Amino acid sequence: MPDDVVLHFGRDEYARRLTLTRRAMEARGIETLVVSDPSNMAWLTAYDGWSFYVHQAVIITHDDDPVWWGRMQDTNGAKRTVYMDVDHIVGYPEHYVQSTEIHPMQHLATVIADRGLAARTVGVELDNYYYSAAAHAALTESLGAGAVDATGLVNRQRAVKSAAELEYMRIAGRITAHMHTRAADIIRPGLRKNDLVAEISQAGLEGVDGYGGDYPAIVPIVPSGADASAPHLTWDDRPIEHGVGTCFELSGCYRRYHAPFSRTIFLGTPPPRMTEAAKAVDAALDAAFDAARPGNRGCDVATALYGVLSKAGIERDGRCGYPIGLSYPPDWGERTISFRREDENVLEAGMTFHFMPGLWMDTWGLEITECAVITEHGAERLADHPRDLVIIP
Amino acid sequence: MPDDVVLHFGRDEYARRLTLTRRAMEARGIETLVVSDPSNMAWLTAYDGWSFYVHQAVIITHDDDPVWWGRMQDTNGAKRTVYMDVDHIVGYPEHYVQSTEIHPMQHLATVIADRGLAARTVGVELDNYYYSAAAHAALTESLGAGAVDATGLVNRQRAVKSAAELEYMRIAGRITAHMHTRAADIIRPGLRKNDLVAEISQAGLEGVDGYGGDYPAIVPIVPSGADASAPHLTWDDRPIEHGVGTCFELSGCYRRYHAPFSRTIFLGTPPPRMTEAAKAVDAALDAAFDAARPGNRGCDVATALYGVLSKAGIERDGRCGYPIGLSYPPDWGERTISFRREDENVLEAGMTFHFMPGLWMDTWGLEITECAVITEHGAERLADHPRDLVIIP
Repeated sequence: MPDDVVLHFGRDEYARRLTLTRRAMEARGIETLVVSDPSNMAWLTAYDGWSFYVHQAVIITHDDDPVWWGRMQDTNGAKRTVYMDVDHIVGYPEHYVQSTEIHPMQHLATVIADRGLAARTVGVELDNYYYSAAAHAALTESLGAGAVDATGLVNRQRAVKSAAELEYMRIAGRITAHMHTRAADIIRPGLRKNDLVAEISQAGLEGVDGYGGDYPAIVPIVPSGADASAPHLTWDDRPIEHGVGTCFELSGCYRRYHAPFSRTIFLGTPPPRMTEAAKAVDAALDAAFDAARPGNRGCDVATALYGVLSKAGIERDGRCGYPIGLSYPPDWGERTISFRREDENVLEAGMTFHFMPGLWMDTWGLEITECAVITEHGAERLADHPRDLVIIP
Repeated sequence: MPDDVVLHFGRDEYARRLTLTRRAMEARGIETLVVSDPSNMAWLTAYDGWSFYVHQAVIITHDDDPVWWGRMQDTNGAKRTVYMDVDHIVGYPEHYVQSTEIHPMQHLATVIADRGLAARTVGVELDNYYYSAAAHAALTESLGAGAVDATGLVNRQRAVKSAAELEYMRIAGRITAHMHTRAADIIRPGLRKNDLVAEISQAGLEGVDGYGGDYPAIVPIVPSGADASAPHLTWDDRPIEHGVGTCFELSGCYRRYHAPFSRTIFLGTPPPRMTEAAKAVDAALDAAFDAARPGNRGCDVATALYGVLSKAGIERDGRCGYPIGLSYPPDWGERTISFRREDENVLEAGMTFHFMPGLWMDTWGLEITECAVITEHGAERLADHPRDLVIIP
């Protein structure tokens, strides 16, 4: 590792992560784990680069350091970020890149074989953005063997955060609050939506208290009026109108750690249904926070939250929260636990969640959400920001 | 389609795209095409939303409008963006989302069956970011049939741009130039890298000439000094130093269309190897532009470009260009043609490329690249911006 390379965590933290992962591998009988989720790759090895648009992975075994494998030109990026030595950084030649004739996973199979790992039970992340159906076919065919599904194996080890991770997430939370404050400061009828987003992004990258911002895994999602009936519309360059609400689903990012939470701003006088819904969501979040204790399950949080909403006449269902932390696009969630009526996952202290009771109605939307860490006394916010519906007359 | 929904292209353009796609399906014997690449989905249906972190697709057949399929809560986003009627927008229930027990593709299989399409030959995009190995297994198992690999089938139809698309890309190119100008205006030793990126992003979102910017499919890639030996390192919050070069791989984005090109800024007096390399890259780009004529192949462009570099003593190989246009994260490339020595794809007028002869050496990097459209007279730039190595003493 070159002298000027800065790891974001101590070597002991990476060792702890490796131990946790190996234990989970052992429980599943996996001897060689191919990790292609960029968030998992970064969590295990400190690798950081926007190279996940080509096939890449880290290989985890029980008896050796992780091996970073990717495009040859990205080995330089690995050398600048990971803690392993250069013997554990392997590149595939350029002619594999987005070829229609050969597949990079054929190369990975030879790397696995060359290191004497081919005869061992191989695990792969079958349901991951960056592990395509073609990648799996090429890898298993070249290995001449099947592979065990290890989707979520590493993600689950990431759930309980270390003190250092929580510190990064609290910084990210302060950045998120800074973004929301900026939005409320500058929004006005006639302002183009893209100019609003430019200011919000500027605040997120500027950061707070000397901590500069990184790119969030999801861009600002800021729909207004009828568009706010949809949870994932981003923005356009039309002027913001008077008399409508705008949802802001935002996250600051610090060293790839996120702390997303949403607020809603109404320009003018909001309809009573919206102010009432904001009060109900506030109370529902309190109930959810109270239910989010170690030993309770994901469904307990959802039931508590939906119970309060239902009393206020709001029938919502589905998912109202998910774990967050280290992430790369396209998602800042960890894709393991979901707060919903069916979820039996048991909560532990130190887990971090986006509590997300967004309301997407037929012609309007309301998002007031929180990010929080599970403690013995219920959930505790990672960012301190007023929870009100923001009204700008 | 609600009255206030604005399509970015005329209905005739979407009809043309559908015709092209159906023709390619017919040539491959595909009767039902499942398109899960978000860029392809948008190109075919105008769908636009940051929802690609969950499974979604459009279904293309020979005898009906496209069917948008995705998460139930995102059907509102489809209703706000696509041109099809509500009968062609289908949502799956929330309990499928990131479940460890059931897979959304099982739901898609029932949609295909319910519409009487199950007995037909189904095509899927096997090597696409958002079509995971688990998605393919769940879909084919539920269909009770295999599927034909249609990777790149739609992408290839996107290669030749319409006049309206070229107009959007030229606007994107002006935005990219605006971002580079801002970078050169504000960069100085001691400026934190994140603050530099904040300004670049602000310029990109602000846009030009009244056209507001959208989010690019790749964030600014701005490594300095030794980090610039790696092509995909993004940024941190350390101050920029005197005496090093910084590469800027940037793209403006307008209505999801991109025009990426790179420049390099050196603070201080660059070493002769860098100024000489900049001259060589300039000449190499001229040669590549000249070779980039209809009828020539991808390899002809690469050979022309590498020939000039080689004469200057720079031995580079691999990929030095790729097609660009409409895109979503994680890549602004179309993943079809690659400018490299092995590429036999034939160029056509109206195709658009990022000519990308980035130099990533052991301890430094240089990026001077161009985006251009193929014309009868060779490649023509989509953005007018000085090609020099920028030196700020």
